[in-house]
Amino acid sequence: MADDKYKGYRGPALSVLKNFNVYVWSDVEVETTKGVFAGVILPRSETADDCHLVLKMSNGYNVGVLAENIQNIREIGHKEAHYKIPESEFPRDPAKPNVTLLGTGGTIASRLDYRTGAVIPAFTPGELYGAVPELADICNLKTEKLYGVFSENMGPEQYMFTAKKIGEEIENGVDGIVIGHGTDAMHHTAAALSFMVQDSPVPIVIVGSQRSSDRPSSDAAFNLQCACHTAAHSDIAEVTVCMFGPTSDQYNLLHKGTRVRKMHSSYRSTFRTLGDIPIAMVTPEKVTPIKKDYKRRDMNRKPKIDAVFEEMVSIVYYYPNMRPDIIESLVDNGYKGIVIAGTGLGHVNKPLYEPIRKAVEKGVQVVMTVQTLWGYVQMYVYDTGRDLLDIGIMPMENMLPEVAYIKLGWVLAHTTEREEVRKMMLTPINDEITEREPFDGYLIWQGGVPEVEEFISKILR
Amino acid sequence: MADDKYKGYRGPALSVLKNFNVYVWSDVEVETTKGVFAGVILPRSETADDCHLVLKMSNGYNVGVLAENIQNIREIGHKEAHYKIPESEFPRDPAKPNVTLLGTGGTIASRLDYRTGAVIPAFTPGELYGAVPELADICNLKTEKLYGVFSENMGPEQYMFTAKKIGEEIENGVDGIVIGHGTDAMHHTAAALSFMVQDSPVPIVIVGSQRSSDRPSSDAAFNLQCACHTAAHSDIAEVTVCMFGPTSDQYNLLHKGTRVRKMHSSYRSTFRTLGDIPIAMVTPEKVTPIKKDYKRRDMNRKPKIDAVFEEMVSIVYYYPNMRPDIIESLVDNGYKGIVIAGTGLGHVNKPLYEPIRKAVEKGVQVVMTVQTLWGYVQMYVYDTGRDLLDIGIMPMENMLPEVAYIKLGWVLAHTTEREEVRKMMLTPINDEITEREPFDGYLIWQGGVPEVEEFISKILR
Repeated sequence: MADDKYKGYRGPALSVLKNFNVYVWSDVEVETTKGVFAGVILPRSETADDCHLVLKMSNGYNVGVLAENIQNIREIGHKEAHYKIPESEFPRDPAKPNVTLLGTGGTIASRLDYRTGAVIPAFTPGELYGAVPELADICNLKTEKLYGVFSENMGPEQYMFTAKKIGEEIENGVDGIVIGHGTDAMHHTAAALSFMVQDSPVPIVIVGSQRSSDRPSSDAAFNLQCACHTAAHSDIAEVTVCMFGPTSDQYNLLHKGTRVRKMHSSYRSTFRTLGDIPIAMVTPEKVTPIKKDYKRRDMNRKPKIDAVFEEMVSIVYYYPNMRPDIIESLVDNGYKGIVIAGTGLGHVNKPLYEPIRKAVEKGVQVVMTVQTLWGYVQMYVYDTGRDLLDIGIMPMENMLPEVAYIKLGWVLAHTTEREEVRKMMLTPINDEITEREPFDGYLIWQGGVPEVEEFISKILR
Repeated sequence: MADDKYKGYRGPALSVLKNFNVYVWSDVEVETTKGVFAGVILPRSETADDCHLVLKMSNGYNVGVLAENIQNIREIGHKEAHYKIPESEFPRDPAKPNVTLLGTGGTIASRLDYRTGAVIPAFTPGELYGAVPELADICNLKTEKLYGVFSENMGPEQYMFTAKKIGEEIENGVDGIVIGHGTDAMHHTAAALSFMVQDSPVPIVIVGSQRSSDRPSSDAAFNLQCACHTAAHSDIAEVTVCMFGPTSDQYNLLHKGTRVRKMHSSYRSTFRTLGDIPIAMVTPEKVTPIKKDYKRRDMNRKPKIDAVFEEMVSIVYYYPNMRPDIIESLVDNGYKGIVIAGTGLGHVNKPLYEPIRKAVEKGVQVVMTVQTLWGYVQMYVYDTGRDLLDIGIMPMENMLPEVAYIKLGWVLAHTTEREEVRKMMLTPINDEITEREPFDGYLIWQGGVPEVEEFISKILR
């Protein structure tokens, strides 16, 4: 074990600390071959590598500095921080609904404290209660860590296991489920669970945070309260994403799992409902539905857990001058489904027609979506679109490309017969295709501009 | 030649018309194996295929119906339309600026009339004057058709030729250039011309239309007037896109060629400036700058025409569970540049690290952008991002994925030396990287909501 002053550091990183006479919690300036970094040296998890120093910078972000690049370290001060969350027993109140929080990883789970100085999931009910005591006012919380992964590493295996886990929790009579998740690919998981868990009797709310809880602007506690409130008390028994709405801390928006997308890399108000309006506005105390046509809570309804996925599916994001090999390689490598994100109403260039035709001939299912993200595929408008239809491409209306990817993987695990695939793809399970965009669905609900919010609040009045 | 009542129809399509006793301009209901279509039978271009009937439906769209699928045609009426534009000589006024309109194809060019009953470019100055006589109040217009292609078929060859053509027109002393273009991949061409034509002394304005001029809601004439006014009279000597702003016919927005993207498949107000604000509001009579820091018109400035492109570049649009073969196939097929559109701050899953490392080792240039479209790549925040940096991925700040694709192709035609590529990619030529997003650049300028427009007009007051 390393000395306590060097918590968790080993190998080359430990040597560097010793060479320059600095320790964990030293406030330092580090000169490296890649530039100068300033910040507080954080403790390191024992499972982390032994070649990086981790600094917390003044902007709240952590930076990892490769030990071998370090030329000098100057200690400016010392800022020992105690991030340990006081753990207390989560109070149980028989009058309150029971919610299960399933953890998969991501910022909301992994940064709740820095006990070990590293990015590790810390996730017992007691810890959560210590961090966000308001949760006890909302529900009785049970937590279970399923994974500790960044959301970009979530995949079919995790989708299927989580779906089954949800089935078990519902079986056990829980009143609502919250899923803690990294934000990057949250919308992919939301789509997957929308298809794999149908007819849920209770709310299934996916939540994350864009800023870790040690940063002053963190959305972790607020999002968690909103999600738990929705799971415990709302009538909305669907797979939803509950994330920051406007740029101010006023409310979260609840998005349908099949119509939501991350639209900003760092803003807290990053999730947007596309081609529809959000289901509801949520605060830690209240859920205000915006849409009327959602599935209601019904404890007597039996959920349908359909956790299957064909992995050989891909997205081809069209760009001008795309060459036939892009399609040919997918076919050669055994892909069974291809989602094209075409330009405009659903177009690709002529040189792709022939490889697409061959792919379809070989039994590959090729579907078309639009990379504009908003709007419908309409392949009847131009000759070129009609040619593509004749080749056998299936247009997916206003299904988002990411959702089409998830749905095609799910459908192909049921059937590979083209007409059956077409039918399943074009039969909406939970609004992944909407009949008509609500007027101005494209434009409003962007939030953050006071005038827009006033407009929204007028609608809601 | 076919009989005049069957203008342009030949072969199976002609037989069907004769069988059911209907003609061009018959208002019909067509029963097919794919459903029933209602509309007016349009004339057909002689260069078009001989197996489709083309109907203009009541919503303004055309639909092509395969002759062999037709089971019955019932004539309801007859609606002969005369779309021929009276051609008059475009008046020349020595006091007015000279503008050259270069046509590449797309809706704005191809649907200005239906003389031949088909989608063909019709584009002489006289025809344009006949269709939009207001143009003569704005400038002296010279037109030249470079191509007649849908924009998804535009590519490096067309970019380079157009750039050289622009150089010649500037050489000839023109006061401004308008480029008529299909809307689908307009933003790709705008980016290409931003890099290939630098330091232009005059405005270069790309324009298109979302609805053809025979539809009541067409934006063709309005967009064309706005674009010509900008080219002729504005002080903004940059490569820009001039397209419909809000949902009402009030003004167009002028977008920087490197920061614009098509964001709705069918709306007229589809183009949006991302990660910045538009340069100006434009009407047929007036240009109102919103930004201050654009390049001013200066007839003494010499443009730099740098029309080169390396075609072996691709975009990889990350999705969860992406498999290594996606990267490996690109390397095997000889690609020299890969733009990854990662999730969140710029992430991909772990199984891709090794193939990416190998690609970089083999001299492939790999750059990272964000598929959220808004926001910056920030690869220092998580371990995973730092790992990717160590592998040799170059983060592209807030450059849009499509723009990174175009720029990487352009840069790789200059150098394949990594540090030189990095330097060129990260040195903005025209705001393809912006230092900081303007506050709320993400949120405002969506247009179309009266309250938002009021807000915008307040800013501009």
